[in-house]
Amino acid sequence: MNANDDLGQSDAISALRDRLRQFASDRNWGRFHTPKNLATALNVEAAELLEHFQWLEDGTRDELSPQSQAGVREELADVLLYLIMLADKLDVDLVTAAHDKLALNAEKYPVAKARGTSKKYTEL
Amino acid sequence: MNANDDLGQSDAISALRDRLRQFASDRNWGRFHTPKNLATALNVEAAELLEHFQWLEDGTRDELSPQSQAGVREELADVLLYLIMLADKLDVDLVTAAHDKLALNAEKYPVAKARGTSKKYTEL
Amino acid sequence: MNANDDLGQSDAISALRDRLRQFASDRNWGRFHTPKNLATALNVEAAELLEHFQWLEDGTRDELSPQSQAGVREELADVLLYLIMLADKLDVDLVTAAHDKLALNAEKYPVAKARGTSKKYTEL
Amino acid sequence: MNANDDLGQSDAISALRDRLRQFASDRNWGRFHTPKNLATALNVEAAELLEHFQWLEDGTRDELSPQSQAGVREELADVLLYLIMLADKLDVDLVTAAHDKLALNAEKYPVAKARGTSKKYTEL
Repeated sequence: MNANDDLGQSDAISALRDRLRQFASDRNWGRFHTPKNLATALNVEAAELLEHFQWLEDGTRDELSPQSQAGVREELADVLLYLIMLADKLDVDLVTAAHDKLALNAEKYPVAKARGTSKKYTEL
Repeated sequence: MNANDDLGQSDAISALRDRLRQFASDRNWGRFHTPKNLATALNVEAAELLEHFQWLEDGTRDELSPQSQAGVREELADVLLYLIMLADKLDVDLVTAAHDKLALNAEKYPVAKARGTSKKYTEL
Repeated sequence: MNANDDLGQSDAISALRDRLRQFASDRNWGRFHTPKNLATALNVEAAELLEHFQWLEDGTRDELSPQSQAGVREELADVLLYLIMLADKLDVDLVTAAHDKLALNAEKYPVAKARGTSKKYTEL
Repeated sequence: MNANDDLGQSDAISALRDRLRQFASDRNWGRFHTPKNLATALNVEAAELLEHFQWLEDGTRDELSPQSQAGVREELADVLLYLIMLADKLDVDLVTAAHDKLALNAEKYPVAKARGTSKKYTEL
């Protein structure tokens, strides 16, 4: 057992990946699902998520209508589903990649410099 | 034990959520992390992901340079991280929401109608 | 002389379109500039524009640093350039299309119903 | 008369800007139209434009259904309208900014280096 076993692809994400593979295979959608097209679809879903927030004044959850809250939940799901499909095509383990990126972010945004500011690391 | 136990928030995602909470708390970033801002950041990262694919002719993995493949892995991670932060603020269990959405998609795209076509469900 | 002469493609946009055609032709970029790729590039530039605003608290111009204001001006330009290239490939007169859309929006958002609310027309 | 007179804000764009100001004023939408919100709305419209192309195999115009072609025309218009509103709030002359950016792009992508390649200028 090593670190990768601890951090690696979760069972829950693998289960979703397997359902998505079956879903696409049942519908013969393989030729549509190039990495480029999946990245495009992911952006379209991310923007549908953003649409619910576009005119909010404070941007908090309380400003979302119950209808929007339900819509947001569906769009979050869509983003996750395309993310899993795209990572699957590229053989990327999402959870390990996320832990690696968090470690990198900790270097780019050291607490002493980044505390209380939203500046990009290139400007810290 | 019930269905939610099987499908619900994975340990791996919960672990990332906890690291992200700590990361933001250490840097006092709470006031920047409104749901609206997180949804915006998620879109920015999704577009950085898409940028790697924008001029590809077939859109396959083989067309990505090794440098782009590494960049894509980081952007996939960024999208997942913002997705987890946003879902956390909205008390959405991502994995359950994804399973629910897959069930809905199965209704919107029945195999008999959707097989081999990329049409939207509203046009099937 | 008819309405289209008044509303139609402006000389300024036609001049930009001609410079863009020459720019792409000089570099032999025609095969990269499919409508799909141009729409993708437009989204990437729109997100680079949005990045400048993502953590702003009020979202006003005063919150942008001078460096960001210069960056925003460049990204606005990039969005316009891709918009003109894409419209050119699709034989769409942008200015006429914009006037047509404004007329449609006036129907979808009648003053009496839309005044002071940010609701989508489907919810008015 | 100077170069700016030749390149500057076109009458056609100024006319659209004036209609948009009136449209928003009639509906009392000023407080929703912060630069941040307009940049967000622009991204949402850009993604609605992209949606029409997401599953196309070659990405050409011929692959768009007549219904999609009409939809694309509306989304192109929406992007232009938000672009004009945002530039108006930031006192950016879009046409001059676009000419300036084209001059910058000519430096970043010299013909001799950029011919026939889609590489980013940082990789040329």
